[in-house]
Amino acid sequence: MVQGSVNLNTERGKEWLQDYVDNWVNFYQKQTDEGKVASYIPRLEHADPNALGISIIGKNGTVIRSGDTDLEFSIQSISKVLSFIVACMERGLSYVLQRVDVEPTGESFNSIMHLEINQPKKPFNPLVNSGAITVSSLLNGRTSDQKLEPLYQLLEKILGHRPEIDVEVYVSERDTSMRNRAIGYYLLEEGYLESDLSITLETYFKHCSLNVTVDDLAMIGLVLSNDGVHPNTDEPLIPKQIARVAKSLMLTCGMYDASGKFASYVGIPAKSGVSGGILAVVPPRVRDQNLPFLEGCGIGVFGPALDKQGNSIAGIKLLRHIANQWDLSLF
Amino acid sequence: MVQGSVNLNTERGKEWLQDYVDNWVNFYQKQTDEGKVASYIPRLEHADPNALGISIIGKNGTVIRSGDTDLEFSIQSISKVLSFIVACMERGLSYVLQRVDVEPTGESFNSIMHLEINQPKKPFNPLVNSGAITVSSLLNGRTSDQKLEPLYQLLEKILGHRPEIDVEVYVSERDTSMRNRAIGYYLLEEGYLESDLSITLETYFKHCSLNVTVDDLAMIGLVLSNDGVHPNTDEPLIPKQIARVAKSLMLTCGMYDASGKFASYVGIPAKSGVSGGILAVVPPRVRDQNLPFLEGCGIGVFGPALDKQGNSIAGIKLLRHIANQWDLSLF
Amino acid sequence: MVQGSVNLNTERGKEWLQDYVDNWVNFYQKQTDEGKVASYIPRLEHADPNALGISIIGKNGTVIRSGDTDLEFSIQSISKVLSFIVACMERGLSYVLQRVDVEPTGESFNSIMHLEINQPKKPFNPLVNSGAITVSSLLNGRTSDQKLEPLYQLLEKILGHRPEIDVEVYVSERDTSMRNRAIGYYLLEEGYLESDLSITLETYFKHCSLNVTVDDLAMIGLVLSNDGVHPNTDEPLIPKQIARVAKSLMLTCGMYDASGKFASYVGIPAKSGVSGGILAVVPPRVRDQNLPFLEGCGIGVFGPALDKQGNSIAGIKLLRHIANQWDLSLF
Amino acid sequence: MVQGSVNLNTERGKEWLQDYVDNWVNFYQKQTDEGKVASYIPRLEHADPNALGISIIGKNGTVIRSGDTDLEFSIQSISKVLSFIVACMERGLSYVLQRVDVEPTGESFNSIMHLEINQPKKPFNPLVNSGAITVSSLLNGRTSDQKLEPLYQLLEKILGHRPEIDVEVYVSERDTSMRNRAIGYYLLEEGYLESDLSITLETYFKHCSLNVTVDDLAMIGLVLSNDGVHPNTDEPLIPKQIARVAKSLMLTCGMYDASGKFASYVGIPAKSGVSGGILAVVPPRVRDQNLPFLEGCGIGVFGPALDKQGNSIAGIKLLRHIANQWDLSLF
Repeated sequence: MVQGSVNLNTERGKEWLQDYVDNWVNFYQKQTDEGKVASYIPRLEHADPNALGISIIGKNGTVIRSGDTDLEFSIQSISKVLSFIVACMERGLSYVLQRVDVEPTGESFNSIMHLEINQPKKPFNPLVNSGAITVSSLLNGRTSDQKLEPLYQLLEKILGHRPEIDVEVYVSERDTSMRNRAIGYYLLEEGYLESDLSITLETYFKHCSLNVTVDDLAMIGLVLSNDGVHPNTDEPLIPKQIARVAKSLMLTCGMYDASGKFASYVGIPAKSGVSGGILAVVPPRVRDQNLPFLEGCGIGVFGPALDKQGNSIAGIKLLRHIANQWDLSLF
Repeated sequence: MVQGSVNLNTERGKEWLQDYVDNWVNFYQKQTDEGKVASYIPRLEHADPNALGISIIGKNGTVIRSGDTDLEFSIQSISKVLSFIVACMERGLSYVLQRVDVEPTGESFNSIMHLEINQPKKPFNPLVNSGAITVSSLLNGRTSDQKLEPLYQLLEKILGHRPEIDVEVYVSERDTSMRNRAIGYYLLEEGYLESDLSITLETYFKHCSLNVTVDDLAMIGLVLSNDGVHPNTDEPLIPKQIARVAKSLMLTCGMYDASGKFASYVGIPAKSGVSGGILAVVPPRVRDQNLPFLEGCGIGVFGPALDKQGNSIAGIKLLRHIANQWDLSLF
Repeated sequence: MVQGSVNLNTERGKEWLQDYVDNWVNFYQKQTDEGKVASYIPRLEHADPNALGISIIGKNGTVIRSGDTDLEFSIQSISKVLSFIVACMERGLSYVLQRVDVEPTGESFNSIMHLEINQPKKPFNPLVNSGAITVSSLLNGRTSDQKLEPLYQLLEKILGHRPEIDVEVYVSERDTSMRNRAIGYYLLEEGYLESDLSITLETYFKHCSLNVTVDDLAMIGLVLSNDGVHPNTDEPLIPKQIARVAKSLMLTCGMYDASGKFASYVGIPAKSGVSGGILAVVPPRVRDQNLPFLEGCGIGVFGPALDKQGNSIAGIKLLRHIANQWDLSLF
Repeated sequence: MVQGSVNLNTERGKEWLQDYVDNWVNFYQKQTDEGKVASYIPRLEHADPNALGISIIGKNGTVIRSGDTDLEFSIQSISKVLSFIVACMERGLSYVLQRVDVEPTGESFNSIMHLEINQPKKPFNPLVNSGAITVSSLLNGRTSDQKLEPLYQLLEKILGHRPEIDVEVYVSERDTSMRNRAIGYYLLEEGYLESDLSITLETYFKHCSLNVTVDDLAMIGLVLSNDGVHPNTDEPLIPKQIARVAKSLMLTCGMYDASGKFASYVGIPAKSGVSGGILAVVPPRVRDQNLPFLEGCGIGVFGPALDKQGNSIAGIKLLRHIANQWDLSLF
């Protein structure tokens, strides 16, 4: 794919890369018809099922954007990575991991069963709902806004702007997600929650309702790729060890029941959300290519048509294609 | 740790590394008392609980060996990685993955339950017993020796010598592992096995009984690190894509119920066995250090005293220490 | 035991029976020390662990009362039988059984897991919490008081007095039972609830908090024994078919995880509650004895010290003894 | 139904009963089309799907036979009741119940999962396969024929003839039932089996392959109804307590996943088998009717077309109809 005769770090090389990504976004956009947009709340249901966009931001400043990159969407489960990071920064990694394990689970993301079978009934990891709700309870603060302020500030430093909640999404999630309330009460009974349940769930639903774009996700991914340091400002935003645990979790548990297949076929840490977003992280790679992104990059994808596992159907295919061609796999 | 003033690629640097590893092997050997040797068959029960050895072989030829490196031990579950690789080479990756998934599971390695709950009842991955037995059935050949010949040949090419079965271990495993027979009959009923069950189990027990040393494991790890190409001969022994899926599986499912924690805290693909062995793989890393092993290396560890999850208790601690100090994590 | 020389239907026979029961109540009261009083709410925790009382009311009017028969206690799970009966009377048996199955389950009474594993996710039976909460939602009425009015009226007709709620128990249950809220939200998500969840749970907690005595339970049992007809007034209070399904449910699922053992060793329909009460029903029996109770009777027992399964430890032993001696088993 | 003007204990009454049963056998025979014959072995697959026969034998000697009463069929799971009885007679009830519980389970008859989840991993009851295989191992004797001799002798005393194994069925079962071998090895590993596994399974498959007719089942039912005493010879064949536990088990667990519904709607102890047989027991009933069978009777049914739960589809409907009309329910 990447021709040896083109130095991809030149302007001409960048044009070449842009054309390449554009072609494949066009190609996979046609396959969005095989998926289905999430329909449990109106806002998600009304997303354009044929939308597909990608943003790739390299450590050296190279940016490739293609397709529907201007659409805003709610971050949904991708925010679980962020709330976990902030909880670890506030309470310490070991304190958090006493309350939430970091093991993958064969059960689905909204399972209560795994809590009932296992001893102790500890949530398996922060990326399933039971774990993410537990994490929300660990955030400092008495109100959901207080709890989320550090997360907003972290995002502001990463993105350069303060993220906003999609109030319609938030209200819909809060008012319809009975399974999450079930999980919350279960955790409360078992003693895992450190805050009032309604505040905890409010916090959880709010951070899931943050509006983002593929550029935002790519910037978050880039900071994670760079071990928590912002590559533009060199400011350390996330401790290296916490960033690494977060990336490890994304690789082992980030793509719902297809996490193992994504790790095998794509091979990079990623977290998807029900709105169709995917946050992917490429740590610096040693490869024979002269591709700029091998110094490390973040990738944001949006494609609201989902496959059976709840991941963006075209987004996964696009990522798999690019990762294989550019040899991005960790392995 | 690794001093900037020492060029670790020189002879003096190598001495420095050797001393460093020796120190930490000594240190962690004292913690073997906290673990317990597997006792379900006599051979494992009679292992020296305080043994600890490590071998690290870098792509550039650097070798560090420390502790009890001369002991032979049965490869046990580590062989599941190899039988999976050979099955994929013989039958094709997609054929094998139609019969065995590559998803991590929250249940234990010898669970039948996960087959019963899930639809379809496909084994979760090739590193749990149900998956490994299914894989054994997929190997070409009418007898267990025929089935294993390609695996022996692959190992001979990697190691330079033909591996041998520990007959006592093989006979003990074959005659005592009733749970594996239970799993085998379950799979047979569900239609997953493509060979006679007794041949399939014979094959499985035989490859688990292969004798290895930490050097052998390190060499296997090195070939996997190098995407299946032997670094000395440049001979491609395993197709790159299959090697990558194998490494991905090791990272997501290789360390029993502690796989997620190992990925988070150590961050390299590894597979452990009940005899106390660990096979670890370090793909080439981009790091600020001048450590020779960052060009890629394989690591073999042996420490028969196990923790509750069934992993070498001192081996994990030693790997974690070294990986953190040398910055080996994939993430 | 029951001597052929004594006609137990005479006054002298009745004295004989009274002495007999008194002796065994005294005997088993000494074994209350082996059990533990429920402690999850203060009211239950403060019950006298050594209390034991029984009331047996025969169809022919014979009454034997012994031990601590004057104590009031909350009816707890025993009320699940009553709410099921009233729901069936209001909505029809087939309508109710479309929403709640009548199958025993190997999982514990407050399990959510069984809802998650099974397809469809229908509650197993009306005597586990998920089933009882579903039943509460089916009762007619917009408030919990409206929903419970028919149940109060039924009890008033059976007992001759209107039952009262123990407000302290109700408030404690309502404010502490997070697992029941978890179950409630799970059911809500799955579409099993036909009323507002908070009204449904209020209804459930209220009927569990009704105060009763062993005489009350014995009278309820007597009416069930008599296929729903009050033996004093001949008034049909419960349709025969509904009464029979209720008795069948008590036999197969009434004594928590010891239901099968109770059916095997005692052999009569019974339902226990966490306060230590047991409601037992003896349908008319054909036996060689001249015991008045073989024409049918109801039995109420109270003994707050519980065994591991959550049943009155002395109560079960007393019932087993009497049932075996008097040959009360259905089988 | 049963007219007061006809004394059903007279010859004319008996004719009336015969006509009545004939009519309903004809009626329900037409509904056999809704079911499906078991097809996992040839012998069962070749059964006539439209066959339906019933035999009812009363304690007073009244016999009603109707439909396809002459067909022989393999007893299948119904034999689990008999092997349990014989094991209890040989080893004592309490010894057997230490190894097999008597609790109903919400999982299916051939589940291994319930062994894996529960602590201790004891089989739930003798009527699921794991329990029945454990029971087979408890029977005295070194060979399967030695183990089964007492069961054959018991049946010979009940039936007046020695039962015979259908060798074709036995061989098919033995050679195809991989799930039962899986269960057997699981139990072996867990330490529940007291005999060699192959002997245990041979024993199990043999007693499932015994040939019976509906008359045979009715006679077995009659002896159980009569608390283990043969009504013709007055010989005590089964201790009363063991007979009662057996009947209790049939009521709570005898009809696969429809046991609770059968108890609710029919209300008599019954055990079905995959060949389409049902053994039902009516203990003496106190009812207002003058029906001879209310003194106690045994019922045998055969109808090989099965419903989804694996019970004879027409057989259940016929039993339900008769039980409701004749008021046979225990409750």
